[in-house]
Amino acid sequence: MSGRIFNFSAGPATLPLSVLETIQAEMLDYKGQGMSLIEMSHRSKTFDALTVESEALVREICGFSEDFQTLFVQGGATGQFAAVPLNLSLEGKVGEYVNTGSWANKAFKEAKQLGYAAREVASSADTNHDHIPSGLKPGRDAAYFHVTSNNTIFGTQFQDFPETGDVPLVVDMSSDFYCKRIDPGQFGLIYAGAQKNAGPSGVTIVVIRKDLLERSPKSIPSIFNYKTFAEKNSLYNTPNTFGIYVVNLVMKWIRDQGGIDIVEKANRAKAKTLYDAIDGTGFYKAHAREDSRSLMNVTWRLPSEDLEKKFVSEALENDLSGLKGHRSVGGIRASIYNAMPAAGVEALVGFMREFERKNG
Amino acid sequence: MSGRIFNFSAGPATLPLSVLETIQAEMLDYKGQGMSLIEMSHRSKTFDALTVESEALVREICGFSEDFQTLFVQGGATGQFAAVPLNLSLEGKVGEYVNTGSWANKAFKEAKQLGYAAREVASSADTNHDHIPSGLKPGRDAAYFHVTSNNTIFGTQFQDFPETGDVPLVVDMSSDFYCKRIDPGQFGLIYAGAQKNAGPSGVTIVVIRKDLLERSPKSIPSIFNYKTFAEKNSLYNTPNTFGIYVVNLVMKWIRDQGGIDIVEKANRAKAKTLYDAIDGTGFYKAHAREDSRSLMNVTWRLPSEDLEKKFVSEALENDLSGLKGHRSVGGIRASIYNAMPAAGVEALVGFMREFERKNG
Repeated sequence: MSGRIFNFSAGPATLPLSVLETIQAEMLDYKGQGMSLIEMSHRSKTFDALTVESEALVREICGFSEDFQTLFVQGGATGQFAAVPLNLSLEGKVGEYVNTGSWANKAFKEAKQLGYAAREVASSADTNHDHIPSGLKPGRDAAYFHVTSNNTIFGTQFQDFPETGDVPLVVDMSSDFYCKRIDPGQFGLIYAGAQKNAGPSGVTIVVIRKDLLERSPKSIPSIFNYKTFAEKNSLYNTPNTFGIYVVNLVMKWIRDQGGIDIVEKANRAKAKTLYDAIDGTGFYKAHAREDSRSLMNVTWRLPSEDLEKKFVSEALENDLSGLKGHRSVGGIRASIYNAMPAAGVEALVGFMREFERKNG
Repeated sequence: MSGRIFNFSAGPATLPLSVLETIQAEMLDYKGQGMSLIEMSHRSKTFDALTVESEALVREICGFSEDFQTLFVQGGATGQFAAVPLNLSLEGKVGEYVNTGSWANKAFKEAKQLGYAAREVASSADTNHDHIPSGLKPGRDAAYFHVTSNNTIFGTQFQDFPETGDVPLVVDMSSDFYCKRIDPGQFGLIYAGAQKNAGPSGVTIVVIRKDLLERSPKSIPSIFNYKTFAEKNSLYNTPNTFGIYVVNLVMKWIRDQGGIDIVEKANRAKAKTLYDAIDGTGFYKAHAREDSRSLMNVTWRLPSEDLEKKFVSEALENDLSGLKGHRSVGGIRASIYNAMPAAGVEALVGFMREFERKNG
């Protein structure tokens, strides 16, 4: 671990050290195959087995049955902003979107840009997205109901998902994928760029309820077609093989430490440590409302922008990196994804106390 | 190098050992940053500099001026089959396609599937794609002229590109990207999935003549919009950071051994060794016509399918892997990309002689 620092970047983000060590150990020769995983045909038995295993691992961590299928695609959440209306829109119906931040709004705007009927049903824009709107429910003419489960920039997170009945709930889970137990029965489709909680950038995880695959029209770009990818178990074309490999390792890292409940417990403890440190002083001020706070991205302000700059810069000198908040909120953002060890949060809190003592 | 075998897979494919060793050495700590490259924000100064450098490196290897721009996108050639008509189609004009094999045909079919005017202007299908059609030129109503420079499955390659005048020549160069010097002035757009000659899978290289960026309409999926990606220097959304990093290392590997002419010379020598071994006997029979042979994928048959199976299986016992031909051609295919050392081709030719001696 020599030389490694605590990396609070919002994404791409810190990965489990043991996963990096495995990648490193296998880089020249993957499991005695005489070549690197990244040199291996995606049509080989070895890689096919890895994909089949990864498809199941992703489902099983949160108990998704075979009524669902995991797809590994490319293009990140931005690709999915197009793929969702392309695949799931229905003649005469409307895609519904909840605007809880920049990325949620981009999803909505992409659907409109492509010419689909789309509607913003609620927004937290008037208070700079410091909360998750309540009382959400789909309209009668909804084709699907889209929410962004965690808002990386603003540090807010759905504590519970809306009940959407027969309308498929579509969730961009890029920044809180598998940070806590979720109930499979609630979802029509989940998508997540892997680069925050599940792997490297360049691979996107989709978990889709299989009946929705029947909606995919043939006239859309093949690379976006959920049904095509489902039929080929994500090997319609050459996937990001390295990305699937690392997601596989991260899923096993979750499983092998005891599963999602253990990960959730650790995340709640880390977040509590950090929010307590913020709330326990008048020097730091949290951005997100208490009922909407994210377990993954913690956002707060200091008394002045000068102090915020100083905080970020001195933190880096103390091997705490990536703490500058997004310009939409300002201040500080600490991203404490699954792979951030408790020691990282403790080091940050220690630094915060010391910084307040000197500058408060 | 202990344990490594010669990997003739068509892609993902063998990479330079020195590149893999660099990835391995930097996996836990990228250049003293205290984190892996794959954990690093794509908005960091370090990664931004890497992207800027990689954009230029890709152009400079073959002398593309600043009239061109390199983009790093996701989705492979399959994504580009959609992106090309989405970005480059023109009202009242037709996308023209040359059908030299399965992938060329897929590009054509994707344009049709999306509802664009597209026309097949020549085909080698009647002789199972054993050659590149000659006398190619665009029609007066062509929006662009699309060719697949190298046909991985059939082992054929354009020796020279057609003159297309004012009509932009669009080339899928996935399987022979930078295997030899090319003349920048001939191209409107080049695209290449990196996983054969330029890096790992999951990153796609696009080199586009900048004036063509003006064709991109706003109403297409953002993830496919060349203009959007050009304006953001490929960082519109989170790219495949690992992929760009490895492409950067592979471009430096080309540059540092003396550049594209040195690589071309080595490739011509390797291909000659292998074709000579095939032609020098009645036992082996090349699939591709002599005037259309690929420097990258060499395809040939044996006297019987049983012997072909035996060849592939015994080759693997001799640490020569990935030699089974594609089912469309049958027989043997040896992919000898830039990173395949001459020693690999020599070992293969030695094995071929021994195999013929025993079974001929």
